[in-house]
Amino acid sequence: MSHSNSANQAFRPIDVIRKKRDGMELSSSEIQGLVAEYTNGKIPDYQVSAWLMAVVLRGMSRAETTVLTDAMLHSGEVLDLSSLPGKKVDKHSTGGVGDKTSLVLAPLAAAAGVSVPMISGRGLGHTGGTLDKLEAIPGFNVNLSVAEFRHVLEKCGCAMIGQTAEIAPADRKLYALRDVTGTVESPYLICASIMSKKLAEGIDGLVLDVKTGSGAFMKSEKDAAFLAELMVETGERMGKQVVSLITDMDQPLGNMIGNALEVVEVLEILRGEGPEDLRELCLELGGWMLHLGEATDTVAEGKQKCDQLISSGKALERFRQMVQLQGGDARVIDDRKRLPQAKQTMEVKSAKSGYVSAMQCEQIGTASVILGGGRERKEDSVDPSVGIILHKKVGDSVKAGDLLATIHYNSETRAQRAEQLITESCVIAEVAPQKRPLVHRVIRKSGEAN
Amino acid sequence: MSHSNSANQAFRPIDVIRKKRDGMELSSSEIQGLVAEYTNGKIPDYQVSAWLMAVVLRGMSRAETTVLTDAMLHSGEVLDLSSLPGKKVDKHSTGGVGDKTSLVLAPLAAAAGVSVPMISGRGLGHTGGTLDKLEAIPGFNVNLSVAEFRHVLEKCGCAMIGQTAEIAPADRKLYALRDVTGTVESPYLICASIMSKKLAEGIDGLVLDVKTGSGAFMKSEKDAAFLAELMVETGERMGKQVVSLITDMDQPLGNMIGNALEVVEVLEILRGEGPEDLRELCLELGGWMLHLGEATDTVAEGKQKCDQLISSGKALERFRQMVQLQGGDARVIDDRKRLPQAKQTMEVKSAKSGYVSAMQCEQIGTASVILGGGRERKEDSVDPSVGIILHKKVGDSVKAGDLLATIHYNSETRAQRAEQLITESCVIAEVAPQKRPLVHRVIRKSGEAN
Repeated sequence: MSHSNSANQAFRPIDVIRKKRDGMELSSSEIQGLVAEYTNGKIPDYQVSAWLMAVVLRGMSRAETTVLTDAMLHSGEVLDLSSLPGKKVDKHSTGGVGDKTSLVLAPLAAAAGVSVPMISGRGLGHTGGTLDKLEAIPGFNVNLSVAEFRHVLEKCGCAMIGQTAEIAPADRKLYALRDVTGTVESPYLICASIMSKKLAEGIDGLVLDVKTGSGAFMKSEKDAAFLAELMVETGERMGKQVVSLITDMDQPLGNMIGNALEVVEVLEILRGEGPEDLRELCLELGGWMLHLGEATDTVAEGKQKCDQLISSGKALERFRQMVQLQGGDARVIDDRKRLPQAKQTMEVKSAKSGYVSAMQCEQIGTASVILGGGRERKEDSVDPSVGIILHKKVGDSVKAGDLLATIHYNSETRAQRAEQLITESCVIAEVAPQKRPLVHRVIRKSGEAN
Repeated sequence: MSHSNSANQAFRPIDVIRKKRDGMELSSSEIQGLVAEYTNGKIPDYQVSAWLMAVVLRGMSRAETTVLTDAMLHSGEVLDLSSLPGKKVDKHSTGGVGDKTSLVLAPLAAAAGVSVPMISGRGLGHTGGTLDKLEAIPGFNVNLSVAEFRHVLEKCGCAMIGQTAEIAPADRKLYALRDVTGTVESPYLICASIMSKKLAEGIDGLVLDVKTGSGAFMKSEKDAAFLAELMVETGERMGKQVVSLITDMDQPLGNMIGNALEVVEVLEILRGEGPEDLRELCLELGGWMLHLGEATDTVAEGKQKCDQLISSGKALERFRQMVQLQGGDARVIDDRKRLPQAKQTMEVKSAKSGYVSAMQCEQIGTASVILGGGRERKEDSVDPSVGIILHKKVGDSVKAGDLLATIHYNSETRAQRAEQLITESCVIAEVAPQKRPLVHRVIRKSGEAN
């Protein structure tokens, strides 16, 4: 794909807007021109926002989506990690509640010899963010320069940072515009945004965890599958090994929600303990990372290897190394009291007996945000100590008066609002619900068996 | 319809954008808020352009279109002409080639006792503009203050000016944004733009001339009828008497195109002479203006009355008065040599014998623009003296070597390009074409006979 001279070609943004408005397919040079000229400030926001809305309502072909992703990717620096030994693989989740798998997977895959150069984001809406969780560890620095990032990678095989100014500046600018113009919700634009940032990491393979259910951005499995398939095809058109797992987000993942609490649960998993759903998903995603990273021949072998690396303590050791290399206080690993602690706890009890038949997962995420664990506005700071521990999950039997959850809080008013949300979100029924699978579907390139 | 406190209601533009994006109907306060806050600069262009694109692709209900029109209308001054005797009626055309009916109709309806407070535009694209035609009369001032406009109206029953800063400022701002964001082509937005400006004139009735054919913006009759019906319903929802005539613009109207030449043809019509198609359309539109203005009981009587006012010279007399009151040199009426004259003429002859079976009307309009009679860019000035006289119209028989047109020009290069366009646009066939009606359809409110 050529994009080197896109900015030099004379083109009129108005023609590109009208063409997409009329449902026609844009040429490579039109898309490349738009992205390049917008990034360098030659096209005003008001033209791009009209174009974005036309894309939301008219869609894009696979070819257009690939060109857009590629143009956004090449709007900035693309890391060259070829000097590092072995394959480089990353994992990306579309966002959920209680999803702390990244903190487990980076050291786990690294322990298997697969490099993980992970660039993550912060909490968005009701979902948590990997950077916020990492920063719950005192001293942990997510703002490394590219040189420092590379150094940590070389030393321990994984590094976890935030987006830098050099990576996909077009996405940064487009995302800010989409956020205020009602043009976030387009699978084509979401795909280009995610894939451009991830492929700028210089990776060979990518495991995508596309969430579906009441706590996901894509509530329906159909929408999740469409996005998952789009990202797999786009990645493959760009020569990368990509797989999408559509996984359940109809209830929080694991039992703990909130930044420091999630670090606690990560440590449990890395010790071979912790809740079964979280452990299972880590093994599934880890198995795929090892397979795409050519550390194992099959996904099943990858899962097995992950299991071993946890049992042997090697994954936890790798986590300790990364924390130290990124300036964090590694003593938290053996002493969870060194993590930020909320001042108060409040118990949420069940009013009825029966089974937990459903959890309105987005509401539980919102409860955590209200406690201070997430951001209501971009400029808000987060309180790492607050959160929720769930004592019951969907399918569990419960008696009236049983503990459903414990709220860790620093503000009584906020705790009361959170309690109300949690109570409302837990549905107690007389019969046990049908169990939803943890992994709904695996999407790999056409023709390859799942 | 209430709009007084719209700007005070707290609302988030992003919610309005998303709602329209998802195809839902906006509430009155949402539309009013958007228009008011955009006009006073509180909402940025990039949000409004995204909303405009959503409107283009999702459409609007009749209720939404009416609220939008009303909000744009009340963004500025609405003239109160209630102190003038009789009804106030205007005519508006969606734009064509050789359409000089406004210059005939304003004095004609005024002579029948109907006041015509006409606010017009300039040439746009391949179409001519009423203001440019009026300014071909030396001294004619289209930039009157509201007080001067009212004075001329009181004196002679008609006045013709350009848009003032006080009239529908929301439309001015929205139109500029639509022009650069590919959001011009929406019947809902076109309707709101036209109707808000026209109803700001403080009129009781409006005759809309919606053009269809190769020289119109709406090429298909279906699109023209949709817009025509939308404007009639919107006007009626706002308590006005409105009729739409869908008229033919598959060839230029009359024989003369170009600003001074069109004034010559206007004078011919006002003398009871001139080409039959132009005369017929003036009587049709004039008949409706008199009927809506309650000067006659029926449209047929209105046409008859118009015919009489032309025969008696009263319409021409009213034209003379208006020219004098607006500072124009009324001697042009009796001496066309006092109008701007092009230096050269060039003959365009037919290469074949047969019948003129079609004229690519937009190309002929473009030929006139190329000669200097219109604007290629907004900031261009027009040359009032140049233009085209057609000697054959669609359906006429022609022999090889017969004169098809005469080009009046001041630049040889431009004349050659115009000649080529005219030659290409005239199709000569062996059989006479089927005659297209001048008035395709009349659209009046539902239930009323046409």
